[in-house]
Amino acid sequence: MRIGVDIGGTKTEAVAIDGAGRVIEEMRVPTGFGADAVIASTVAAVTELADRLGTTPPAFGAIGVGVPGAVDPASGRVAHAVNLGLDDLALGDELAARLGVRVRLENDVNVAALGAFHLLGLGAERSMAYLNLGTGLAAGLVLGGRLWRGSRGTAGEIGHIPVDPAGELCSCGQRGCLELLASGSAVARQWPTEHPRPVQNLFEAAAAGDALAIEVRQRFIDNVASAVRVLVLTVDVDDVVIGGGITSLGAPLLEAIREVLASWSAQSEFLASLELPSRVGLAPAGPVASVGAALLGDLASSIEPDLV
Amino acid sequence: MRIGVDIGGTKTEAVAIDGAGRVIEEMRVPTGFGADAVIASTVAAVTELADRLGTTPPAFGAIGVGVPGAVDPASGRVAHAVNLGLDDLALGDELAARLGVRVRLENDVNVAALGAFHLLGLGAERSMAYLNLGTGLAAGLVLGGRLWRGSRGTAGEIGHIPVDPAGELCSCGQRGCLELLASGSAVARQWPTEHPRPVQNLFEAAAAGDALAIEVRQRFIDNVASAVRVLVLTVDVDDVVIGGGITSLGAPLLEAIREVLASWSAQSEFLASLELPSRVGLAPAGPVASVGAALLGDLASSIEPDLV
Repeated sequence: MRIGVDIGGTKTEAVAIDGAGRVIEEMRVPTGFGADAVIASTVAAVTELADRLGTTPPAFGAIGVGVPGAVDPASGRVAHAVNLGLDDLALGDELAARLGVRVRLENDVNVAALGAFHLLGLGAERSMAYLNLGTGLAAGLVLGGRLWRGSRGTAGEIGHIPVDPAGELCSCGQRGCLELLASGSAVARQWPTEHPRPVQNLFEAAAAGDALAIEVRQRFIDNVASAVRVLVLTVDVDDVVIGGGITSLGAPLLEAIREVLASWSAQSEFLASLELPSRVGLAPAGPVASVGAALLGDLASSIEPDLV
Repeated sequence: MRIGVDIGGTKTEAVAIDGAGRVIEEMRVPTGFGADAVIASTVAAVTELADRLGTTPPAFGAIGVGVPGAVDPASGRVAHAVNLGLDDLALGDELAARLGVRVRLENDVNVAALGAFHLLGLGAERSMAYLNLGTGLAAGLVLGGRLWRGSRGTAGEIGHIPVDPAGELCSCGQRGCLELLASGSAVARQWPTEHPRPVQNLFEAAAAGDALAIEVRQRFIDNVASAVRVLVLTVDVDDVVIGGGITSLGAPLLEAIREVLASWSAQSEFLASLELPSRVGLAPAGPVASVGAALLGDLASSIEPDLV
């Protein structure tokens, strides 16, 4: 049995999985803001989960924790997790001291990639990119069954590839970044709404025939498809799995992305040969990030956290 | 001792390397055109090389062969090698039958990546992209010391990532592909010349103050730098090594690329954190592709041809 935790911007989710990787218990608590509160809410989630299982955290050899921001798995430090109020925190050590277990820390998109790979039942010979459509745009890569973090943990940062020299200025200092066109914040900027789910609201308005909504929706979908193309052309993963909150849109989202990819294939024999529409899918339902974090916890797992 | 062959558009190069990977013998013959002639020139190169070493090809357990085009290493077939006049040829089997050895076939950019990785003395913990600036633009990836071909052998095909919606139509059917801006053919189109080395001629004209040459040169360098950025943001390799004929330009080419990357870093804290200028370099002198091909020949080598 292994425990994994995903520290999200609003909620912290903890799961326990059995030896076969099935979720046997899960729970959520609100995420605190700032170092002390984030540590406290994470400790509370793990302790409560262990309690429900009739045990205590030290009974687990190690737990895995996914967190947004720049994470150094070797040192267990996290930097620049702005929406959690964290900057350069030794989160791994802090949690380990309070919980009495070894803690493996990893970036949230990377653990979601591992979790999706596992929940989709993909084998060790497969490769997959998890394309996270959140406020920003980033991907996690699982190559040959293993998480590929890259040399400095920045693999999959495709949101900051410029795709239009005439595009807007990005907060990263570049112009025309893909993230400005294919992300939750991209939609929020082009389709201002008080709706709690702006992308869903956009799709509903587009389905109802609103001309601006149709235009904004198409630009968004076109650029999500561009992100898929970047991942396949560069890394040539078997599959690109779309993840993040907006996957609750379900089949209409996937069909729209596939339509764009198919229209490109009709114009390019080269792209057609890559069979992009059949290689894109949606992340599975379920707690992908916390399951992925749990898989980090066991170094003996067939899914290793590092390639090298 | 291992033998590797690189079948290029004009010449075929064969090398023998010793157990430590040092080149102990090498030779070149003109490459034939069409299936029979390509097979004949490759057989001649290998037979002559073995003869110089006082032996015959069957004395080698296997030889590695790099060839342009779409290569299936499992079947030893090559498709679409237009400038060799090959289409769907069982080149591996044909060579094996004539030479009496097992043949491992691989794409030319991929073997060059393996060879550069080896000749640079990079260790198994390192990752590297070999960015080949030839007629087209493509990269070979070595991740954690191993060649990453991708799921269908198309990893590193970054030349067909569109980077400008207002760009020219590419022969692949898309618009604004990176290859239209950062490749030998891109330079040839923008700087027509009878000079045998158009990029060298362009750089000389730019150095002499020709306004058009300066503009074309800068556009070329900017987009080579873009290719470096795509590779680092997506795969996060330690190093990007520039290869292909134009690397004979040497230090001025590398310095120009580094200047562009440094100017971007000055505008983007995010890019600055990636330290791109220090991560780009030139391919080593020497027969990178044939050495890489030789490394394919020995499955017991620490450098495996496949990741999975």
